[in-house]
Amino acid sequence: MSGGTQPTYLAFDIGGTKVASGFVTLPAAAGDTPIVTGRCSIPTEAARGGDDLKRRIVALAMRQLEQAAAEDVTITGIGIAAAGVPDSETGVIVAATDILPGWRGQRIYDAFADVTDLPVRMIGDVGAHGLGEASYGAGRGKGVVLSIGVGTGIGGAIVVDGGLFTGAHGVAGHAGHVPSALGRGFLCSCGTREGHIEPVASGTGLKDLYNRRLEGAHEGADAADTAVEAGGDVPEPASSGADVAARAAAGEPLACAVLADSARALGECIGGMGNLVDPDVIVVSGSVVKAGPIWWDALRDGFAESALALVKPTPLVEGALGGDAPLIGAAAAVRQYVQSR
Amino acid sequence: MSGGTQPTYLAFDIGGTKVASGFVTLPAAAGDTPIVTGRCSIPTEAARGGDDLKRRIVALAMRQLEQAAAEDVTITGIGIAAAGVPDSETGVIVAATDILPGWRGQRIYDAFADVTDLPVRMIGDVGAHGLGEASYGAGRGKGVVLSIGVGTGIGGAIVVDGGLFTGAHGVAGHAGHVPSALGRGFLCSCGTREGHIEPVASGTGLKDLYNRRLEGAHEGADAADTAVEAGGDVPEPASSGADVAARAAAGEPLACAVLADSARALGECIGGMGNLVDPDVIVVSGSVVKAGPIWWDALRDGFAESALALVKPTPLVEGALGGDAPLIGAAAAVRQYVQSR
Repeated sequence: MSGGTQPTYLAFDIGGTKVASGFVTLPAAAGDTPIVTGRCSIPTEAARGGDDLKRRIVALAMRQLEQAAAEDVTITGIGIAAAGVPDSETGVIVAATDILPGWRGQRIYDAFADVTDLPVRMIGDVGAHGLGEASYGAGRGKGVVLSIGVGTGIGGAIVVDGGLFTGAHGVAGHAGHVPSALGRGFLCSCGTREGHIEPVASGTGLKDLYNRRLEGAHEGADAADTAVEAGGDVPEPASSGADVAARAAAGEPLACAVLADSARALGECIGGMGNLVDPDVIVVSGSVVKAGPIWWDALRDGFAESALALVKPTPLVEGALGGDAPLIGAAAAVRQYVQSR
Repeated sequence: MSGGTQPTYLAFDIGGTKVASGFVTLPAAAGDTPIVTGRCSIPTEAARGGDDLKRRIVALAMRQLEQAAAEDVTITGIGIAAAGVPDSETGVIVAATDILPGWRGQRIYDAFADVTDLPVRMIGDVGAHGLGEASYGAGRGKGVVLSIGVGTGIGGAIVVDGGLFTGAHGVAGHAGHVPSALGRGFLCSCGTREGHIEPVASGTGLKDLYNRRLEGAHEGADAADTAVEAGGDVPEPASSGADVAARAAAGEPLACAVLADSARALGECIGGMGNLVDPDVIVVSGSVVKAGPIWWDALRDGFAESALALVKPTPLVEGALGGDAPLIGAAAAVRQYVQSR
């Protein structure tokens, strides 16, 4: 299954907590599914700095290439899905948050060129996720795919005719940083408190919204009051978005209200993005999409409320590739690069 | 100046109140400016219906082509910037608002084919505006141009490498229908009251926001109170966005506050759209951009508040082509079409 006549790529997904890698065999036919083998992962250990991280990624690449050689798997190229904002042309990390100190400025292509002659292509991890879903997942066969990732943060990607749209500075697709009334007063990871959707609709945001309302209810100063009272006992603060989802699934009124309000606000934002981008399909992925029907129903309601008549019928579907999407997208990116040379 | 070796197109701009036409000579060199001559216009008289409108547009085209022949101007093609959502492939109006009853479903290419062999290309009027500005105006020479039109309504266009990005259903660019906290409770032209930016930041929206706050102040139930009181006399309701801008220019506190709040909210939305699309330049056009420095300063403040670090430096500039932008964009569209055949 693994080698055959279909090309196999070594792919990396560099995140804040771990670096995953694997061999991705992309199918020749559009309808077939990519196969990921030889999975490996190392902790990011971000505190050790960008130089150290880069060195360990290259060392991991060498080990993986040796393994491939031992298993007689021919690697055609190396695709990298990187946290931060990478410049795909130069292979330099243009921007990165404090989660990865010293990651900004790292010259990834240069580091790989020291140890391998294989073609290397790096794109952003959220873009890779979207490219993977658009090429081989829930967006397969569609012209314009808007991919939204709702996990610890909220990100996104726009894929047009199979190519990742990166915009002027490789920033395009930042779907979490759009205005939302619900987000006012919540600090966004970008620094604004004026009201972005991320700080109230990401996994962390669900927790924060819940705990803020719980606090308001304690003070008797919030409409969430009613929800809390209806539930009887006053709940403990939530520890995560998954915790909020679990409480909602158990019927806790405050958790249900928070989940619905958050998803509805996100749905309205996705409606607005749909009106601007007019995609053929909107693929929603990430840990929060597992929050259940309360979340999905509210998301679809908010979307329908905000979307224009011609945009309203656009399918809003769950991602199909799960955690492999960035690896598959990274492989797709290097394949496109090799084919375009 | 008019003919020469550069191609000249007959262009139309079909709006809700008038249909403008003219001969557009597109420059050979990128740095030169298009020349519009032979301008003509007829009232839309929308109430007479879509069939009648289509017939009168074709009749106008015939007169214009006769005039061109009489003046020895060679017309290379016909470009149409149309209100509503046109399908550029089929030449059919896919959607239109109640402003143009019976416009939806009109087969424009078929009607022109009955009277001329010239190539005809139709795109949306807001898209044509953006394509004109991107190709020959304030966005000239830039890769990704986000064009925002702020007039009676709010529209927009995304132009990528000189081509209009139309999305899956020709809807892409609808920049007025994105969430904004300020818009909550105001009826948007799309039907939502959940809070889009258009009903509080278009020209009409400025007037409505002003009058709503004035009403609130009369009732002593609004923070606008202070602004009104500080101005002394209680003002009359505003009659238009231009009226609000004029009152602000004269120093009326409520008008100043409304203008600033509206522009700031719009700026935040444009920041969000910038984060999603990551353009090289954002071109802002339409009657409201004449509202003066209070409006522009607040727009830029809101944008800077909402835009990510890498997007913040993106220039936010006023359109350079004025009312000719749609005619020029329509000409650019038919030129692209002819060149691509």
